[in-house]
Amino acid sequence: MDMFFYPSSVVVIGASNSPFNLGATICRALNEYSTYNGVVYAVNRKAEDVAGCSGFVSVEDIPGSIDLAVIITPAGVVSGFVRQCADKGIKHIVIESAGFSEEGPKGLAMQQEIDGIANAHGIRVMGPNCLGVLNTKNRFCCFYGIQEENFKTFAHETGSISYIIQSGGIVVMIMEAFKTDVVKANKVVSIGNKSDIDEADVLEYFNKDKGTEVIGIYLENIKEGRRFIDAAKKVTKPMLVYKVGKTKEGSKAAASHTAGLANNDLVFDNACKQAGIIRVNSISELYGLPKIFTCMPPLKGKRIAVFTNSGAFGGISADLLVQSGLEMARLSPETQQRLEKTGQIFNVSNPVDLGPTISMQTFTDIFDILLSSDEVDGLLPVPSLWHPMVIEAIGELVKKCMKYKKPAAIYTPNAAFKTISYRAEHKVPLFESLEEAVRALCVSYRHHLYMERKTHMPVSDGDMKQYPDK
Amino acid sequence: MDMFFYPSSVVVIGASNSPFNLGATICRALNEYSTYNGVVYAVNRKAEDVAGCSGFVSVEDIPGSIDLAVIITPAGVVSGFVRQCADKGIKHIVIESAGFSEEGPKGLAMQQEIDGIANAHGIRVMGPNCLGVLNTKNRFCCFYGIQEENFKTFAHETGSISYIIQSGGIVVMIMEAFKTDVVKANKVVSIGNKSDIDEADVLEYFNKDKGTEVIGIYLENIKEGRRFIDAAKKVTKPMLVYKVGKTKEGSKAAASHTAGLANNDLVFDNACKQAGIIRVNSISELYGLPKIFTCMPPLKGKRIAVFTNSGAFGGISADLLVQSGLEMARLSPETQQRLEKTGQIFNVSNPVDLGPTISMQTFTDIFDILLSSDEVDGLLPVPSLWHPMVIEAIGELVKKCMKYKKPAAIYTPNAAFKTISYRAEHKVPLFESLEEAVRALCVSYRHHLYMERKTHMPVSDGDMKQYPDK
Repeated sequence: MDMFFYPSSVVVIGASNSPFNLGATICRALNEYSTYNGVVYAVNRKAEDVAGCSGFVSVEDIPGSIDLAVIITPAGVVSGFVRQCADKGIKHIVIESAGFSEEGPKGLAMQQEIDGIANAHGIRVMGPNCLGVLNTKNRFCCFYGIQEENFKTFAHETGSISYIIQSGGIVVMIMEAFKTDVVKANKVVSIGNKSDIDEADVLEYFNKDKGTEVIGIYLENIKEGRRFIDAAKKVTKPMLVYKVGKTKEGSKAAASHTAGLANNDLVFDNACKQAGIIRVNSISELYGLPKIFTCMPPLKGKRIAVFTNSGAFGGISADLLVQSGLEMARLSPETQQRLEKTGQIFNVSNPVDLGPTISMQTFTDIFDILLSSDEVDGLLPVPSLWHPMVIEAIGELVKKCMKYKKPAAIYTPNAAFKTISYRAEHKVPLFESLEEAVRALCVSYRHHLYMERKTHMPVSDGDMKQYPDK
Repeated sequence: MDMFFYPSSVVVIGASNSPFNLGATICRALNEYSTYNGVVYAVNRKAEDVAGCSGFVSVEDIPGSIDLAVIITPAGVVSGFVRQCADKGIKHIVIESAGFSEEGPKGLAMQQEIDGIANAHGIRVMGPNCLGVLNTKNRFCCFYGIQEENFKTFAHETGSISYIIQSGGIVVMIMEAFKTDVVKANKVVSIGNKSDIDEADVLEYFNKDKGTEVIGIYLENIKEGRRFIDAAKKVTKPMLVYKVGKTKEGSKAAASHTAGLANNDLVFDNACKQAGIIRVNSISELYGLPKIFTCMPPLKGKRIAVFTNSGAFGGISADLLVQSGLEMARLSPETQQRLEKTGQIFNVSNPVDLGPTISMQTFTDIFDILLSSDEVDGLLPVPSLWHPMVIEAIGELVKKCMKYKKPAAIYTPNAAFKTISYRAEHKVPLFESLEEAVRALCVSYRHHLYMERKTHMPVSDGDMKQYPDK
C-alpha cells in the first residue's frame, strides 16, 4: 500500500491540454500547487507535456521505472492502458475513470477484464470510479479536479485524521470543512467501486500509519464484511464510520452510485459494536467530531460538569447529556464551596452558572477546581463570547485539560456562522452546536470503553448495551 | 397586549448616564438606533437626560400620560416604582430586573408584592427577569444591552416570524442567526419569570397578529398547562416549540434560571400533539426551520423527489427521508422518460442524478416535470454549488414551487460556513444541513395535517401516531 501514498514517480494517463481535461488538473496539482518532489509524467495521444510534466504517447515510452499510474480516460480504453502498465512493470494503479460496475453488466465486464490483467501481473488497483489519493505528508495528491485554493488549504497542512471515503463528493465536503477547523487531514483515500483495494486494506494500512491518529470512514457498501470487521478489531485508533443504506431506499440509491450490494444495516451495526467502530449520525460528524480525539484527552467516565453564563444553555446541556447516556456530575459541598470562593458565581451546583464574570482568574480557578475534582470526568463548557477575554480563557482551558488529562467539549452559544468564524480565527477546538459537543463527549467515552475491552478488559455484549451511543 | 408592542410613550425607569447602565442601552436603542417615533423618558436619581430622553426623578413628574413603563433597577426598589406607575395610571409594565422568584423565597415575596399592586390597579406586567419586547413593525425595542449592530440587522427589517422566548440568551442567538438568513423577525417577547403575562397570553395575541405567520416558542416551564394548550388549539399558524426539561436534570437546571416548576415531559409531548404544536429538537431548529413555512407552500403528502448531482447525497437523502417517516416518490416510466429527454441525466429514477449539467433549461425542465407530477408532493433538491449557474437555478426553483404549490427544502452539499455565506449573499432559502432540510419537510407536512384536523377533518389520536415527527 505504501506506493499509493509515497510514490517517487507517477504517470497520469489521460492528462492532456484539451479544455476541461481532468488529468491535467492532477498534473497541475502535483507540479504547480504542490511541493511534492517526485517526478510526474503525462500520457496522451499527442505526447504533449502537461503543466510541466513530460508527455508520452504510451506508458512504455517513459524512461526509467514508475511507482504509480493514475488512469483517467474514458472507460473503454482503460484496460489497454492497464496492459501497458503491466508491460512496464508498474505494480500500483489508481483508476479514476467512471463507467464500470456502477453502470451495469457491460461496465462490470470491463472491470472484470481489468481485474484479470491486474491479478495476472500482481498489480494492486484502487478504484475504478474514484477520486484517488491524498497524502499531506509528502503533498502527493491525485484528486482530479482539485482547485488551487482547495489544495493550498487542505493538502498543504499535515494533520492527523485519515479518511477512507467511497465517494468523491464527500471528500470535497471534508476539504471544505477543514478550511475553517483546527484539525487537518493526514491521508485521504477515495476507494470508489473497490474492484481490488477495499476498506479493509486501507484500514490495516492506516492502523500502522504513524501520522494517523483518527480514522474516518464513509461507505456505501462493505465488500467483505468479515474481513473488514476482523481488520477493525485490531485497530486501536478511533474509527468513525458513516454508512449509507440504513433503509432499503438508501441502499438502492447507493447501489446506483458505487455499485455495491445492500448490506443488512442491523448486522452491520452489531458488527461495529463488536469491532469497536463508532457509527456517526451525519457527514458533518465525520469531520466535526475527530477534534475531540486529537485536541483533548479521552473521557474515562460519564460524569460531566457543565459551566456556562447562559441559564438557558445550562438546562439544555443537562437534558442533552442525560438523554445521550452521560451524567451530570454531582458536586460535593466542598467543591461547591471552593467554587463559591472564586468570585461572582451565580450558581455553584452543576450546571455552574458563571454570571457575567470577566476575570481570567475566576475562569482558571473554575477550570482547576472542576478538572482536579474526582467527582468530574469531563467538561461541557458553554461560555458566551460576549467579551474578548472569554476566547483567551478557552485557550487556557485547552491547556488545563491536557494537564489534568480530562476532556472538554467546548461550545459557545452562537449560531454556527459566528462559532466557525471564531474557531478559524482563534484556532480553538469549538464544536458547531451543543448537540455536536455532547456527541463528542459520547464518542470519546465510547472509544475509551472500546479500548479497555480491546487492550485488557473483556466486556460482554450485555455490558456494551449500557454504553452511551446516541 | 397591544400596548406592549405599540406604545406611543415609554418611560425607562433606571436609565442613567452611569457607566454600564443597562437602562441607557434601551434609551439609545429607541432614540438613536431606531426610527421608533414614540416619546421616551428616563427616570433616575439625578433626573438626567439619557441619550436624548428627558430625565425625571420620579414617574409622577413626567408630563402627560405614559403607555408603557420599562423597569430596569435593582430588584429591591422595583415595587416602589410599580406603585409610582400605578399612581401615574400606567397600565403596562415590563420588569427586566432580575432577583425575584428565580432566586428563592425572598425574591418570590418581592414578586408577589408587585403582583398585588398590579392586580389592585389593573396593571399588566411582563417579566420580571426578562429581556423585554421587540416589534419590528414600529421599531419599538426595549431589549436591554442591545448593540447598534444587532439592532440594525435584526430590528430594522420586518419579517413574519414572532417569538415567545423565556430566556434572553436564546433571543440573542436568534438575532445572530437571522443576520445571515432569509427570514426575519416580526415580534419577539422575552417573558422571563412570567408573574403575570405568560406564554398563553402572548400566543393568543400572536395568533390574531396580522404580521405574524409563524410562532417560535422557547419554554423552561409552562405556567398553566391547560390554558396554554387551549390557546394553542385555536392557533392556525405553525407553532414550533423547544422546551427544556426533558429530563429531571434539565428541569432542575431550568428551575434555577427562570423559577418554573418541572413539568412532566411526556404529558407535555402528548398535549402538543393534541394542540397542533410542533416540538423542535434544538435551538437551531427554532430559527432554521421557519423558512419552510414562509418561503414555501405547505407539504401536503409524503412523497418526496430528490434531485442531486452527488451520488453520495442521493443515498443519504433516501435514508433520511424514509427514517423520518416520509417516502421516496416513485416516478412512473412516463415521468422517467420525460426526465430522460431533458438532457444529460445520469439517473432518472428517484433520486434523480443530474450529472454535471450546467444548462438552465435542463434544470427548469426537471423542476417542471417533478413539480407538475401527481406522483410527487415535494422536493428535496441537493445540487452542488460548483458553478454560478446553480445558484440562479435555485432562484428559479423557488418561483416554480410557488407556481405549482409544492415545497422544496433545498440543501447544497457544503459544510455549514459556505452554505450560510451563500444564503446571506444570494437570499435563497438554503438549509444548513441535509438533516435540517428533511426536518423542514417533516414539520411542513405535520403542520398541514394539524391544519386539516383543526379546520375540517377530525383526526383520531391513533391516526396522529402515523404522522412523521422525527
